[in-house]
Amino acid sequence: MIIDRLYENVIKKGPVCVGLDTRLEYIPEYILNSTKSIEDKIFEFNKSIIDATIDVCSCYKLQIACYEALGIQGLLAYSKTLKYIKSLKGISIADVKRSDISSSAKMYAKAHFEGDFESDFITLNPYMGQDSITPYLEYVKNKNKGIFVLMKTSNEGSKDFQELKVDDEKLYVKVGEKITSWSSEYIGESGFSSIGAVVGGTHFDEMINIKNRFDNMFFLIPGYGAQGGSAKDISNLLGKNISGVVNSSRGIITAHKGKEEGVNFSEFSRKEVINMRGDILKWLK
Amino acid sequence: MIIDRLYENVIKKGPVCVGLDTRLEYIPEYILNSTKSIEDKIFEFNKSIIDATIDVCSCYKLQIACYEALGIQGLLAYSKTLKYIKSLKGISIADVKRSDISSSAKMYAKAHFEGDFESDFITLNPYMGQDSITPYLEYVKNKNKGIFVLMKTSNEGSKDFQELKVDDEKLYVKVGEKITSWSSEYIGESGFSSIGAVVGGTHFDEMINIKNRFDNMFFLIPGYGAQGGSAKDISNLLGKNISGVVNSSRGIITAHKGKEEGVNFSEFSRKEVINMRGDILKWLK
Repeated sequence: MIIDRLYENVIKKGPVCVGLDTRLEYIPEYILNSTKSIEDKIFEFNKSIIDATIDVCSCYKLQIACYEALGIQGLLAYSKTLKYIKSLKGISIADVKRSDISSSAKMYAKAHFEGDFESDFITLNPYMGQDSITPYLEYVKNKNKGIFVLMKTSNEGSKDFQELKVDDEKLYVKVGEKITSWSSEYIGESGFSSIGAVVGGTHFDEMINIKNRFDNMFFLIPGYGAQGGSAKDISNLLGKNISGVVNSSRGIITAHKGKEEGVNFSEFSRKEVINMRGDILKWLK
Repeated sequence: MIIDRLYENVIKKGPVCVGLDTRLEYIPEYILNSTKSIEDKIFEFNKSIIDATIDVCSCYKLQIACYEALGIQGLLAYSKTLKYIKSLKGISIADVKRSDISSSAKMYAKAHFEGDFESDFITLNPYMGQDSITPYLEYVKNKNKGIFVLMKTSNEGSKDFQELKVDDEKLYVKVGEKITSWSSEYIGESGFSSIGAVVGGTHFDEMINIKNRFDNMFFLIPGYGAQGGSAKDISNLLGKNISGVVNSSRGIITAHKGKEEGVNFSEFSRKEVINMRGDILKWLK
């Protein structure tokens, strides 16, 4: 199961997830000023970061919004990046946060688990309920794919609905209970399920509550670094079983900014991943 | 404001929204068996339906999942279709249901309100709260764009979270209140806001409740026909002010199936739009 491969990476290489939320302004000038297409500039940037980090991170998360914003050229780079990660036997998480009725969810499953945009894991938004999630499950079962469902997101606005009280529980706990029920059939040898949850690393109290309540869940944790999440706080959610991957995007892929911008720019990303890994692991001892 | 243009179309041409949820199996064989690219086959199909319906419908909704499922070729057809609708001064709704933190939402706004995938309206999922919606507002204010936020969706699973009780109200009512507060600054001459709500046409009681509660809201109403929504029920939500557009996808774009599949195939779509319009309007007298 894909979750076992991911967990093996977490243990062997650490829980860092490198967020390839690439924007043109992040790309060093020597690439940006070349005569290459936008597709190739983005891909060259991503490839360099992947090559410099694949032995020290667990997986890569691509925020598709950054690629959609650049239109067809952006999505060509997105596709090429996913294929490159696969060619290196790396693990990709497509951060697409899709949600739709069953017939459209089937199309999204095809879009992101097959063909041009094939990835290992995708993120999904639960607001539309169970039948908006079930179409993805045949891929989890038969095609070695995985899902992270939004539970408690890292942003300030996550309190607007996710923290509303339903039967004396917060809405996100209700969502977490549904995720648990969906995930129970897809548990791998690691003891974790290929259906996990997105929980932002920015909410100190919520992370402790969530870990107490959902101690066997595997988490995709955004919010470290640029968004304000600290390793100490996030360690409460990971726990001794290191039940998750911690994403950082800007902190890693813009690490070269203000420094040397030459062909070795991605070495700064590598250093940042190693620092971040150390910062997290020291709280888990 | 874009909402005024849309409402003018509703009054002049009727409230039907044609759902261009195009799949290869819908395309007549004379196009499918041609030597054209997938991009061009899809576009030719869509163009024919648009040409046959633009004077009898208010707008077009493109379910992007259908295009993403075909990868880059599908998205090229998606882009071409949006540009074609714009060239005819038609109105497009990109059914993307995106949701993300502010920095990524800015990218999605750029993706779907500018460039290759520019549309007039987009749909958004509210689960992540206010700061996942605000990045789109500058386009509503300055670029004549509009938004439909998911409130109560048309699918069975919509009950799983959207109907949970929060302070004696259903969650979707809380979402509706937020939509009302976001929409209040963008009200056009029609009296409606360029920020509306998606409410499925499949829930009889909920539609009456929503109309009573949110009488000045403009709705995008999916679920007519193939999903089971009836014109009589939906008329409760539209009301005498016809405060919405009613989408049908399969019912319209597969109307030629089992009939003549020649170059005039889209005339069956036209007839279906006219029938559907009559079916709805007769309940609004």
